[in-house]
Amino acid sequence: MELTPRFPTFLHGGDYNPDQWLDHPEILHQDIEMMKRTHVNCVSLGIFAWAQLEPEEGKYDFAWMDDLVERLWASHIHVCLATPSGARPAWMADKYPEVLRWDRFFRPRHFGGRHNHCPSSPVYQEKVTAMDEALARRYAAHPAVILWHLSNEFSGDCYCPRCQEAFRAYLRERYGTIENLNRSWYTSFWSAMYTSFDQIEPPGPMGQESLPAMKLDWRRFSTLQCRRFIEMEKRAVRRFCPDLPCTANLMEDFHDYDYFELSGSLDLVSWDCYPAWGRGDNTETARNYAMNHDMMRSFLDRPFLLMESTPSLVNWKKVNQLKRPGMHLLSSMQAVAHGAQSVMYFQWRKGRGGAEMFHGAVMDHDLREDTRVIRDVTEVGLTLERLSHLYHAPLKRPQVCILYDWNTRWALDYAEMGMPGNMGYLETVREHYGCLYEQGISVDFRNCERFDPDEGYALVIAPMLFMFSSGIEDRLRRYVEQGGTLVMTYVSGMVDGTDQAFLGPTPYGLTDVLGIAYQELDALYPEERNHALYRENTLLEIRDFCSIIQAGRAQVLASYTDDFYAGSPCITRSVFGLGHALYMAARLTPEGLARFYQDLLKDLGILSPFPHPLPHGVIVTRRADHLFLQNYSGREVRIPTDRCWKEMIHGQTLRDCLVLPVNGLLILRSEA
Amino acid sequence: MELTPRFPTFLHGGDYNPDQWLDHPEILHQDIEMMKRTHVNCVSLGIFAWAQLEPEEGKYDFAWMDDLVERLWASHIHVCLATPSGARPAWMADKYPEVLRWDRFFRPRHFGGRHNHCPSSPVYQEKVTAMDEALARRYAAHPAVILWHLSNEFSGDCYCPRCQEAFRAYLRERYGTIENLNRSWYTSFWSAMYTSFDQIEPPGPMGQESLPAMKLDWRRFSTLQCRRFIEMEKRAVRRFCPDLPCTANLMEDFHDYDYFELSGSLDLVSWDCYPAWGRGDNTETARNYAMNHDMMRSFLDRPFLLMESTPSLVNWKKVNQLKRPGMHLLSSMQAVAHGAQSVMYFQWRKGRGGAEMFHGAVMDHDLREDTRVIRDVTEVGLTLERLSHLYHAPLKRPQVCILYDWNTRWALDYAEMGMPGNMGYLETVREHYGCLYEQGISVDFRNCERFDPDEGYALVIAPMLFMFSSGIEDRLRRYVEQGGTLVMTYVSGMVDGTDQAFLGPTPYGLTDVLGIAYQELDALYPEERNHALYRENTLLEIRDFCSIIQAGRAQVLASYTDDFYAGSPCITRSVFGLGHALYMAARLTPEGLARFYQDLLKDLGILSPFPHPLPHGVIVTRRADHLFLQNYSGREVRIPTDRCWKEMIHGQTLRDCLVLPVNGLLILRSEA
Amino acid sequence: MELTPRFPTFLHGGDYNPDQWLDHPEILHQDIEMMKRTHVNCVSLGIFAWAQLEPEEGKYDFAWMDDLVERLWASHIHVCLATPSGARPAWMADKYPEVLRWDRFFRPRHFGGRHNHCPSSPVYQEKVTAMDEALARRYAAHPAVILWHLSNEFSGDCYCPRCQEAFRAYLRERYGTIENLNRSWYTSFWSAMYTSFDQIEPPGPMGQESLPAMKLDWRRFSTLQCRRFIEMEKRAVRRFCPDLPCTANLMEDFHDYDYFELSGSLDLVSWDCYPAWGRGDNTETARNYAMNHDMMRSFLDRPFLLMESTPSLVNWKKVNQLKRPGMHLLSSMQAVAHGAQSVMYFQWRKGRGGAEMFHGAVMDHDLREDTRVIRDVTEVGLTLERLSHLYHAPLKRPQVCILYDWNTRWALDYAEMGMPGNMGYLETVREHYGCLYEQGISVDFRNCERFDPDEGYALVIAPMLFMFSSGIEDRLRRYVEQGGTLVMTYVSGMVDGTDQAFLGPTPYGLTDVLGIAYQELDALYPEERNHALYRENTLLEIRDFCSIIQAGRAQVLASYTDDFYAGSPCITRSVFGLGHALYMAARLTPEGLARFYQDLLKDLGILSPFPHPLPHGVIVTRRADHLFLQNYSGREVRIPTDRCWKEMIHGQTLRDCLVLPVNGLLILRSEA
Repeated sequence: MELTPRFPTFLHGGDYNPDQWLDHPEILHQDIEMMKRTHVNCVSLGIFAWAQLEPEEGKYDFAWMDDLVERLWASHIHVCLATPSGARPAWMADKYPEVLRWDRFFRPRHFGGRHNHCPSSPVYQEKVTAMDEALARRYAAHPAVILWHLSNEFSGDCYCPRCQEAFRAYLRERYGTIENLNRSWYTSFWSAMYTSFDQIEPPGPMGQESLPAMKLDWRRFSTLQCRRFIEMEKRAVRRFCPDLPCTANLMEDFHDYDYFELSGSLDLVSWDCYPAWGRGDNTETARNYAMNHDMMRSFLDRPFLLMESTPSLVNWKKVNQLKRPGMHLLSSMQAVAHGAQSVMYFQWRKGRGGAEMFHGAVMDHDLREDTRVIRDVTEVGLTLERLSHLYHAPLKRPQVCILYDWNTRWALDYAEMGMPGNMGYLETVREHYGCLYEQGISVDFRNCERFDPDEGYALVIAPMLFMFSSGIEDRLRRYVEQGGTLVMTYVSGMVDGTDQAFLGPTPYGLTDVLGIAYQELDALYPEERNHALYRENTLLEIRDFCSIIQAGRAQVLASYTDDFYAGSPCITRSVFGLGHALYMAARLTPEGLARFYQDLLKDLGILSPFPHPLPHGVIVTRRADHLFLQNYSGREVRIPTDRCWKEMIHGQTLRDCLVLPVNGLLILRSEA
Repeated sequence: MELTPRFPTFLHGGDYNPDQWLDHPEILHQDIEMMKRTHVNCVSLGIFAWAQLEPEEGKYDFAWMDDLVERLWASHIHVCLATPSGARPAWMADKYPEVLRWDRFFRPRHFGGRHNHCPSSPVYQEKVTAMDEALARRYAAHPAVILWHLSNEFSGDCYCPRCQEAFRAYLRERYGTIENLNRSWYTSFWSAMYTSFDQIEPPGPMGQESLPAMKLDWRRFSTLQCRRFIEMEKRAVRRFCPDLPCTANLMEDFHDYDYFELSGSLDLVSWDCYPAWGRGDNTETARNYAMNHDMMRSFLDRPFLLMESTPSLVNWKKVNQLKRPGMHLLSSMQAVAHGAQSVMYFQWRKGRGGAEMFHGAVMDHDLREDTRVIRDVTEVGLTLERLSHLYHAPLKRPQVCILYDWNTRWALDYAEMGMPGNMGYLETVREHYGCLYEQGISVDFRNCERFDPDEGYALVIAPMLFMFSSGIEDRLRRYVEQGGTLVMTYVSGMVDGTDQAFLGPTPYGLTDVLGIAYQELDALYPEERNHALYRENTLLEIRDFCSIIQAGRAQVLASYTDDFYAGSPCITRSVFGLGHALYMAARLTPEGLARFYQDLLKDLGILSPFPHPLPHGVIVTRRADHLFLQNYSGREVRIPTDRCWKEMIHGQTLRDCLVLPVNGLLILRSEA
Repeated sequence: MELTPRFPTFLHGGDYNPDQWLDHPEILHQDIEMMKRTHVNCVSLGIFAWAQLEPEEGKYDFAWMDDLVERLWASHIHVCLATPSGARPAWMADKYPEVLRWDRFFRPRHFGGRHNHCPSSPVYQEKVTAMDEALARRYAAHPAVILWHLSNEFSGDCYCPRCQEAFRAYLRERYGTIENLNRSWYTSFWSAMYTSFDQIEPPGPMGQESLPAMKLDWRRFSTLQCRRFIEMEKRAVRRFCPDLPCTANLMEDFHDYDYFELSGSLDLVSWDCYPAWGRGDNTETARNYAMNHDMMRSFLDRPFLLMESTPSLVNWKKVNQLKRPGMHLLSSMQAVAHGAQSVMYFQWRKGRGGAEMFHGAVMDHDLREDTRVIRDVTEVGLTLERLSHLYHAPLKRPQVCILYDWNTRWALDYAEMGMPGNMGYLETVREHYGCLYEQGISVDFRNCERFDPDEGYALVIAPMLFMFSSGIEDRLRRYVEQGGTLVMTYVSGMVDGTDQAFLGPTPYGLTDVLGIAYQELDALYPEERNHALYRENTLLEIRDFCSIIQAGRAQVLASYTDDFYAGSPCITRSVFGLGHALYMAARLTPEGLARFYQDLLKDLGILSPFPHPLPHGVIVTRRADHLFLQNYSGREVRIPTDRCWKEMIHGQTLRDCLVLPVNGLLILRSEA
């Protein structure tokens, strides 16, 4: 579903909770005035407003929202309308305790907090549906309303009897017979065999924790439960506005649900982005969030919304630092560079109480209208307006794809191997990603199911792809055969889609493609290191993991230098069909990894979109024909150039030298 | 209520548990003999003796206690008589489980341990009252008995249905209507609105944890619950001895109850003091406990009792070290210097079993009568006798007052801001206190409610006074206006008494007095530092917090040197009325803070009572006209002097040079 | 009960779970083939096979096991037959929830995991008995079956109502009257007195945690519960095979049960040995496991079985490293050197799923038959065959005995003293043991009950023997009197068998023997050190604990150099009767301890069985007339020799120089 035409241009705005200020009309007045002054064109409304919208069971009160929507629209401010299912009123929890979830100790939660509904509760489903329909009936046709913001930051799972029953139903459907389930979960281990689906409970500390496959299925089921809830909410709002798109705000580095799966139920992906920007060098932080941006774009392969970010600081990290000057524009434009269609904030105005009363916001408690934050926000609003031509410009397909798969992430988390609970999948993907990121090379993400060998990627990287599911090995084989280049690492292809170890050589199904076979996995203590001798005279440093492999017909690019496997192959390259398959048997340190990719990208002719070398911390990202030159280095940087550049915010022409102050940004188009 | 005449002089003694030794008459005999030899004149009796006093329900056994009291009194040893409500017999918990409290997971506790009664339990209240009355009836008139020691170390709270109901009753009374409560707790946040008081449960991990104001009220309620329990016990014992004072032994750095409130129910403040005196430099430890002493004295503005301390070591710290030679006298006299009327120990004799069997005591398991500990204790006993003239000498009112407020402490603990859960209120108050302490300057403590601008303080310090309650801003304004000097810091005056953010500039109500306005709060990682350029050429180091302020008419005493707010004001001084108001926008390191106060005290003419400069670790404290010169430095120290001093323990006259060995003490009166 | 004749020679094999592979006949075929090739002669069968053996209640399926036993035996492979009580089928937990234990929060566990039965459950007892009898009836007479492997790694305890009742029954029997119990538990502390046994619950965080004596009794009771369970299983299997020995696999450094007690119910001790062998110097690891081996041998004073070890790596440590080349043979022969009659593995083949799917095994997922692991295992199999003459050679009684007592271990864990919870008993015993171990001197272990002064030890060491139970002081006195040498340390003899402090001087009953009396215990922070001046010019370093003692007629060997007790005695020696009693008042660092023992052993003429000095990390262990020379140093080592040696694995004669590569091993017999 396309957002256009209701989506007019880049959205700029944020979460707005006027329900906290209904007895302060002067504040509501200031809100709208200041939105105009800060070039805000959109707010998310009603996210936690259930208690205001339905103060008593069945008695809806929309008057205040009617008024607000009208006043916003009168100032040309759009509305992302939230369903309030992220938290429910006390009267509901009191009357129908079943709406609250049970924790993993099988304890029913009491009323309080948020994001703690039981997704199976018929009462909650009924109440949410009724509320969503009422909202939809009333507001969907309003020209201000452009998007449904379903609930908030879905997360977690529930151990109540109904959810348990739903889990069993899911397993019945998935496995058909208990014998199948027993086989898939490998319940011959520790006498865990079930004779009836009725015996099964969710995995957890009170009961079964010894079956990784069961834990994996619990995560898949939890993803499905969330998806069903989203679909239920979608059905409710769609009854009255079939053409309004629905999103749900996702979260960074999220573990509990498979977002590739979940986003299948969304028309648009949106997410909440909270980096800890600090003093000095922010390059690693920038890398981690760039990767999140790219992943969010990849889920539906289209632009995404930055639904939440902070205009100044958050209040829930261990140490909460202010955004330094320049950082608000820089980080907002980072999102845009990677495909965002919006820059939205949590939140418009700081509340006077509650756990988030000191979370950064555009408007502060002091009611001032001339703060540093307001100036920063205004600058972003103006910049978005100046970049409006980019809004519809199609995104360019990257040349590189990284395989990132929730099933592998979960399986590695649950795998008792190597360094149990500390296998470092996410960090490893980040390190591989970073090698491309720092060279300005765009990346798509795919999971096993979604990977298509014919999408034309010049390079596919599969870091630690522990689980080969959906027959990924066949598609990777075809990809290489057809001329692609594949990079694979230690602990790949060890288990199948049910989390059972493959029998026979691994990486399963690809040993001939890679020309190697995995044999043993050694783990290093944090202070230990090994090295790989690479291209005859370069030593690459290794930490954490060394796998011992047998190189068949693969060419050895690097060999271990230390320990009893010194001399044995560490990095190999195999020619297969028209392509190449590389294998990295050990975990290189980031420096070593960077060197490896430098050479590989050069070999493959995958080039930075920027013609000059960039110092550490200066990142270039391309969107359409715009280059976003971003300085995260913490130092002022000067880049000599022999070209002529158009700077897109202020319209200057730049030549000879590009100057980037600390946290500086240049959005450039080559004039040459 | 005055203690005199039953209180004859400095008390010296400790917790005495003869009920553990009833089958060892030779031990009981040795006890009294050794009390006499160690100059013990008072013991606390019966603290955990309920099971002995009422071995079966309703059957009291006082025979052993009768005997003990008589024997003690025959040797002129006084008795602080305890009510045994700190722990109850197994038969009671077994028959009436309601006497035990519920934990914050709403789980009823089983029998065991101590300090775990339910304060609302009618059965417990009835049993305690009956026991207290029986004790009072029997012993209150006995000339040996001088004081009621109510229960023991009150602490904690209870989540049972009755306590929940009491919490709701408290809220009904406090807020009148649920609308008021909703407004005060800011329940518009996350849809937390209540429609009935009946929906409210105590805050905690099973339910509502997102409302700081609710958590604060739970603490206030818990304080009240404890106070009610104390009042109940007082009523019981007063029925038979209206003129005997009541105390309860408080604890160091206590968090859970507001001791300013609680001590309103006590005739006398007493407390239990357990520093970790170690090898080497003990100055910081001395500072922390001096502050506790001063606070205990401040609660009722009168001398206090040191109810427990150890004659050698404790057994419950991570590492339990012996008191080094000299330290027992030094630390005991520290208490006296700050206003103690007693030096009492936990405990007289080590028990043979139980969790505290290895806690230090006067008498050890080996039954020896010539131990180092016994010699140390005897020395303290003798010294107290020699200082008896100090007992009635009135305390001198300090020139300096520090505002310390439990409401602010709780609010900062619950505030999600800066470094959540790690705002460092107590440590910051200690650091400010230390700057005065190390200069020998006495300090009173006041909370917001108790602060009186007309008490004549030359200097009032309000470190991190986050919450302005009870209209403190008006009294501070008046204080400055009338000529006082006020020091205020970052994060002051941000929330009102219901823990809601003030709207408008902060510190609330004092921006004109201070001549500044707070704008933003930056937090520093532990390894990060900023600096303030002070008085043109001094760099003061800053850690943790930098607030950015706008200086209006205030004079800038110091400016930041680093980061994007370099050059902006860090310390300011404003003239207001006849007084001065200083603002410290950042957290100085202790060295920087010391420098700041050095100058300030000099400007204000607030002088050390000792005429010569003292090296680090040598502290002087004045009580009446006695100077307690204390050496915590871990080194021998020699202080040249041109005066003539009378040493008050041994009566020598000292001149030319005062010599303090490691842990040395001189109690001096100037003869000049 | 002797193992012979069914036990033919050193056992070599491991846990075998064919029940996981019944649908893979080719795997079962490969298993047997590879067992033959790797010289495996024994497997442990059926450890977690209950669900396979009794898939429905009362319906046994032995067909697969019949088949396996036959096939194994056809290849001359023996069977240790396991009872499957370590885990139970889901149907049983479902139908009879009582079979699952309750945790210390009094919560019933749900189905899952292993080792979590309720030992008191009548249903579980009945089911286990029936299963064990069925197995015994069917297999006990089979010539392949040589041993009962009862359950698996017994551990833990249960808080269910039945186990609580059993605890009370145990206490009734132990104490007779509640008055006795009150006295022994010292319930006069904190009013903890019980008036009826019915009031007593197990100690724990929900109730009573303040009585160390009670916690100790809970551990003793738990040991008894386990022992009863073992006896029950023994009765069941003995009904059909009275002459087959029973073992249970014990665990390293085990805390929860008293293994001296428990092994009283076993015919044979076996244990599971999982060192973290790493790169570099493994000497400390070798020491810790050598000590375990020696302890296992000491429980029944006879050879033991190594029931589990890994042929490559484990999967449950924080960092799981491969065994380096040589280490598998070296570590296997370490067990043999200390008295093992077997080298067995967990496990024969890696499962495809479950928590242990990546635990090292002989056969890997890749199905290869030529792995490094297989070669290592084969080498061990061959070596065991070559050493078969050692199998029946009697073990030589060591000259040195260390007292190690579970009661002291528990009492020190529960003692609130010194460094509570961190008294370091096990580590201290290891350090004393290590001083003998590194000199090649064999050691027996005894607890207080088992120590016999007439066993002829030349030296008895009692590190930190906090609790004197079973009148140990009398036997130690007699031991010294008769000419023995005793080493005793700080915190010895402080409490009696009910964990009550002795009254009077300590070490209780031995102050005249030792010629000293204990006075005070000082604890040092981790970074603090003291020293002892030893033999006039040697400084021994001290950490953690310094006790202050009064030396009576003992000779002072070393005195403290620092702190206020500088100059006071630290190590003393007393002549008593015909023997000597040494006392060590402080915790020496390992270097200091080594120096102390070096001198002492020299004085006593206790010599290494190897004639030449050995560098650090090279350990010699004697079994019968074989010397096992083991290189754990991480470096190649060359040892010049003037003797002529027979190397027992390959049969060479060695002279001039013995060469040990990294992880090298030489099994030698002197030819001189």
